[in-house]
Amino acid sequence: MKALVYKGNGQCALEDRPIPQIQEPTDVVVKVVYTTICGTDTHILHGDVPTCTPGRILGHEGVGIVHETGSGVSSFKKGDRVLINCISSCATCTYCRRGMYSHCVKGGWILGNTIDGTQAEYVRIPLADSGLHHAPQGVDEKGLVMLSDIFPTGLECGVLNGKVQPGSTAAIVGAGPVGLAALLTSKLYSPSIVIVIDKDPSRLQVAKKFGADYIVNSGESSPEEAVMKLTDNTGCDAVIEAVGIAATLELAQDLVAPGGTIANVGVHGSSCSLKIEKLWSANISLTTRLVDTVTTPMLLKLFAAGSIRPADLITHEFPFSEMANAYTTFKAAAEHEALKMLITM
Amino acid sequence: MKALVYKGNGQCALEDRPIPQIQEPTDVVVKVVYTTICGTDTHILHGDVPTCTPGRILGHEGVGIVHETGSGVSSFKKGDRVLINCISSCATCTYCRRGMYSHCVKGGWILGNTIDGTQAEYVRIPLADSGLHHAPQGVDEKGLVMLSDIFPTGLECGVLNGKVQPGSTAAIVGAGPVGLAALLTSKLYSPSIVIVIDKDPSRLQVAKKFGADYIVNSGESSPEEAVMKLTDNTGCDAVIEAVGIAATLELAQDLVAPGGTIANVGVHGSSCSLKIEKLWSANISLTTRLVDTVTTPMLLKLFAAGSIRPADLITHEFPFSEMANAYTTFKAAAEHEALKMLITM
Repeated sequence: MKALVYKGNGQCALEDRPIPQIQEPTDVVVKVVYTTICGTDTHILHGDVPTCTPGRILGHEGVGIVHETGSGVSSFKKGDRVLINCISSCATCTYCRRGMYSHCVKGGWILGNTIDGTQAEYVRIPLADSGLHHAPQGVDEKGLVMLSDIFPTGLECGVLNGKVQPGSTAAIVGAGPVGLAALLTSKLYSPSIVIVIDKDPSRLQVAKKFGADYIVNSGESSPEEAVMKLTDNTGCDAVIEAVGIAATLELAQDLVAPGGTIANVGVHGSSCSLKIEKLWSANISLTTRLVDTVTTPMLLKLFAAGSIRPADLITHEFPFSEMANAYTTFKAAAEHEALKMLITM
Repeated sequence: MKALVYKGNGQCALEDRPIPQIQEPTDVVVKVVYTTICGTDTHILHGDVPTCTPGRILGHEGVGIVHETGSGVSSFKKGDRVLINCISSCATCTYCRRGMYSHCVKGGWILGNTIDGTQAEYVRIPLADSGLHHAPQGVDEKGLVMLSDIFPTGLECGVLNGKVQPGSTAAIVGAGPVGLAALLTSKLYSPSIVIVIDKDPSRLQVAKKFGADYIVNSGESSPEEAVMKLTDNTGCDAVIEAVGIAATLELAQDLVAPGGTIANVGVHGSSCSLKIEKLWSANISLTTRLVDTVTTPMLLKLFAAGSIRPADLITHEFPFSEMANAYTTFKAAAEHEALKMLITM
């Protein structure tokens, strides 16, 4: 089969690999139909993810068809159409029993990281009974791929950790795919206003189209001044950081209201300043989370009901043979007004 | 009357001042019976609290007798024995209605900060219906003073923000009065182990006596290694920072378990490093809080029932005429094995 392999030094390449085999009774091998590229994949190319070593097939998002099942798999059979969770989980360890699948002692984020991933014609999914979901009947399977990672990430790490609730004021720093997924899922909880902050005018226009009440171009004006003006000089109840650099997480600390929450979503490669001299008395929380995919069943129901339209995030489509082109487009996202790349096998 | 007045430049002095008068219908003037000194008072002397200017009568803790009431006060009358809240609150603004009395638009921490405080023979208590509590019958009023600030602070900012619950593993960094109050109130929630970390051997012995399961002298060994060894290499579910310097809040980040909470209690004068490159995927929370005193009614019931013994924190007693000596002793706490100073008027 063809697979997209991380080569080290910022490089990846399509290579021939054997079709993966069942290794454990709990494995399923999935024939991939659609996959996509995540910002985390570009972090790997930049060398920010030391657990992912050269030779690894990348990718942790996908939709496909069950090709083969291990003897211990009870919920899936050959031919089933499935959504692949970006997180693998045993469902029985102490972390899983708390709903912290991201920290499963046998799993977590391993696909396309410590084991071969979904940017391939076939992928082995370990612990498949909890690592796969049945695709709802009749949904657009292109949009379904967005539920592997970015929708539950925006919702869990951003909206739920940020405690967005009816009437909340919310700011989202970063209008990339995950920031936009946070925007779209924030609406499930009826905030009073959502302010989206980015430097990219085209992404801000997408945010506006997706329901942002206010957009702030941080390259042109002070986001702190804008947020204070929009919130009666109070700040926002929920500030969702969806970039992953020190400057934006430090900015988030200037935007949060007393009693509010800063929900970090970004993947960070270095430390930042914590303005505790200002925040110690502010009754705030700062949260972090690797997505647990506990909300995926809920998102699947909303998707099937037409309440969320994740395919709206897809800006480009490529056949798998053009993966190099897809990566190039994704890495120069501003130039191409790119959000999510849909890759068809 | 005599009053302890902040003079600037690290100095305070006993001076003669007029007995305070009712200024608003919601005021009460209290004749102080007991007061005490808080670490925050020494922060003021160090110039860390710019809102508190020279000429201010210090102190935000006290027990006394109602001397005079404004016409709008409905819950207290002359002669009532009362506990003074360190936080003043109107009980009706948007923050108060959320239980965030510390951010009351008319109050908050103002006593001994922006208005004259309790280290005086008399004190004016604004918004008295919510700023005072009736002293329970028959309790030791010396211990009662510990419920003005340090017990609710240890409980709310430490134990509750830290989400200590049955079976939790907890670490408390700093065995000063507030850290010890957090230790004593953590027991209300039945944690499985509580580890107390400090550099002062005598404070660690007090922590042991007060029920710490393990004590770690951070001057002698690595607290991170000790905590990891005691928690099966996981870290603690709740890490309570009760010092207020960058080093201890940075240490707290190394002690927290995946899914755990760092509850900052300390008053900080400068920023610290946030190790977000390590924590972004750890599903942790970091919380801050100025005490809201929402738990004071519960603490009063526990005190009246004999379930907590706050007087155990009192190591020294002074008459008010020896306030200078009390401050000197408190500032050299390690030398004097000092925790709380009880000041009798």
